[in-house]
Amino acid sequence: MECGSYQVIRKSSECRARLGKVYTTRGVIDTPIFMPVGTQGTVKGVSSEFLHSSGAQIILANSYHLYLRPGTEVIKKAGGIQKFNSWNKPMLTDSGGFQVFSLNDIRKINENGTEFQSHIDGSKHFFSPEKSIQVQKDIGADIVMCFDECTPYPTDYEYAKNSMELSLRWAKRCKEEFYKDDSYKTQALFGIVQGSIYNDLRIKSAQEMLNIGFVGYAIGGLSVGEPKEYMHLVLENILPLLPENKARYLMGVGMPEDLWECVERGIDMFDCVIPTRNGRNGQVFTSFGKINIRNAEFKEDFSPLDSDCNCPTCTGYSRAYLNHLVRAQETLYLSLLSLHNIYFMVNLMSNIRKSLRNDIFLKSKQEFFEKYYSRN
Amino acid sequence: MECGSYQVIRKSSECRARLGKVYTTRGVIDTPIFMPVGTQGTVKGVSSEFLHSSGAQIILANSYHLYLRPGTEVIKKAGGIQKFNSWNKPMLTDSGGFQVFSLNDIRKINENGTEFQSHIDGSKHFFSPEKSIQVQKDIGADIVMCFDECTPYPTDYEYAKNSMELSLRWAKRCKEEFYKDDSYKTQALFGIVQGSIYNDLRIKSAQEMLNIGFVGYAIGGLSVGEPKEYMHLVLENILPLLPENKARYLMGVGMPEDLWECVERGIDMFDCVIPTRNGRNGQVFTSFGKINIRNAEFKEDFSPLDSDCNCPTCTGYSRAYLNHLVRAQETLYLSLLSLHNIYFMVNLMSNIRKSLRNDIFLKSKQEFFEKYYSRN
Repeated sequence: MECGSYQVIRKSSECRARLGKVYTTRGVIDTPIFMPVGTQGTVKGVSSEFLHSSGAQIILANSYHLYLRPGTEVIKKAGGIQKFNSWNKPMLTDSGGFQVFSLNDIRKINENGTEFQSHIDGSKHFFSPEKSIQVQKDIGADIVMCFDECTPYPTDYEYAKNSMELSLRWAKRCKEEFYKDDSYKTQALFGIVQGSIYNDLRIKSAQEMLNIGFVGYAIGGLSVGEPKEYMHLVLENILPLLPENKARYLMGVGMPEDLWECVERGIDMFDCVIPTRNGRNGQVFTSFGKINIRNAEFKEDFSPLDSDCNCPTCTGYSRAYLNHLVRAQETLYLSLLSLHNIYFMVNLMSNIRKSLRNDIFLKSKQEFFEKYYSRN
Repeated sequence: MECGSYQVIRKSSECRARLGKVYTTRGVIDTPIFMPVGTQGTVKGVSSEFLHSSGAQIILANSYHLYLRPGTEVIKKAGGIQKFNSWNKPMLTDSGGFQVFSLNDIRKINENGTEFQSHIDGSKHFFSPEKSIQVQKDIGADIVMCFDECTPYPTDYEYAKNSMELSLRWAKRCKEEFYKDDSYKTQALFGIVQGSIYNDLRIKSAQEMLNIGFVGYAIGGLSVGEPKEYMHLVLENILPLLPENKARYLMGVGMPEDLWECVERGIDMFDCVIPTRNGRNGQVFTSFGKINIRNAEFKEDFSPLDSDCNCPTCTGYSRAYLNHLVRAQETLYLSLLSLHNIYFMVNLMSNIRKSLRNDIFLKSKQEFFEKYYSRN
């Protein structure tokens, strides 16, 4: 099987959702899948031991961050990112495009690529499509992404059009660079559909991406501030154009409600920093809705975070103790809350797959939300 | 067996070291023992799951910190500190004396006790010997300590004498308060020998403590800045006075070398924040000496922290990866390095006990140091 190739296992009879598998060098991933994010090569606060126990099947890392620190040379010498960080399972690297644009005030973009300053030491660097692919080859993740411009929101039609077209030209260069050697035998390159919220631009981007041809397709530039309805509309317009035998990855999404809504519209892969970022703020997902464990109401609540959850945090500690850890600024809470949130998302996806296996997606979705919104 | 009672298993034929057991409500502790410190009820950065796996048999918590946050009421309602923090094994609480004196500029000390301000919100509180014992009963640790003044170093003879005598009067009141109800059936009260570096004061303190009579004895006010030789001299002078059938606990000590030196002089119990505090600074103990993992020399070092260590950090990650985590300020390093250092100390103590079991303490000590100092 080619790395990154996709196989439908069962299609929903109710909607565009599908159960499937993505084949990679380091293992087969069940889809729909949620990918925890390890920006700097590590999922913040969570050891690989706990990450494995959560049932996570693939995690994300970021080329921009790893390129700057520890540097691709170190990772290459370690034998690749999966050896470096002891994860040893499938990984995906973002191209660095999003970070080059979002973390840098002083960046210069031209046809060839983008000059940017390191957010660490201010040193100057240049990423072209070719450079990003080289960096991602060195990092060695199973799935690598095209270098593109993540079009900001809001943006006018003209900017969105130019940006989308630039990303298309860069996508061609990425593909050329990627297939220059035999990396494709162990790595997969995904293309990214852009076009902001403009329907015709999205369609154009999707069609041209298909013309270039990739082993999988991502939808980028969503969940960047636009209303949720726009995101759903884009998916409804684009996904029917994408081939059924390729994986579809919605970048940077999302919340529990997004997973249901976007799987329903045909998405197979998700990534989001929310589980760990929320964990660091005391925000916790539970089957009964979101809570902030720092709140006074939990000070003497000796029940687990989520009575439905079997994660080490829920089986090991009470809300009262976690409330104490957050208030006492004990860093252990970072790990315990992040770990729980990751378990929550991984488990949610596992339940979504189960509903697809039994073709009861919509009923399961309704049941989930009845419970999830029951606290408020 | 009375909680806190001690039994000699084997005495060294070479020195004052002894192998023994301390009996507590929640389990039997093998001595000599190193107790990791969980100041606020949690060993910083280390989950109870990992703590258990390290082989730690007893941990410490601090009455001052727990009294202020989350408050003894919460811990009492949880069913005691061991339930609150999910440790479920023996614990010891410090009396709060050390913190009242060291964390407070604006404290007023008189015969009755000490007024102090919370380091959290500036609120005023008062700890008397009776109050400290009440707080420690509510917290519910297996071993609780007398409320005393930890005499600072350096200090003149007069201050040290008055301070030691005040601590003696307080020790009597602590004992009275402790035995007022049947707490002694599940908790043990230890007395603390003070007297700074003055030999006659130390002897007086020890004799008077014996007259009051406790189930175990601690040596306080050492490792507070005085030269190591003074600490050794105090131990050499005091320990022969203490009964062989009672545990001897050296408070706030120490480094790996201290464990060997003080076990040799007859100490059974130790506690120290060094493993976790060093961990947070990137400082790591190894069989071959101390290293700081942040150093550039480890950037491409793909070997484990300590090739002799079986902790999850050493079996799971390389020095290069840990170097990356520290430099990238990924909080995961706090957990991984603290965990390793705790394993190191627990394992070191296990080796010390083994040497006592085989009556080869001095030979083992020499071998340890030959290796430990081999890096430099």
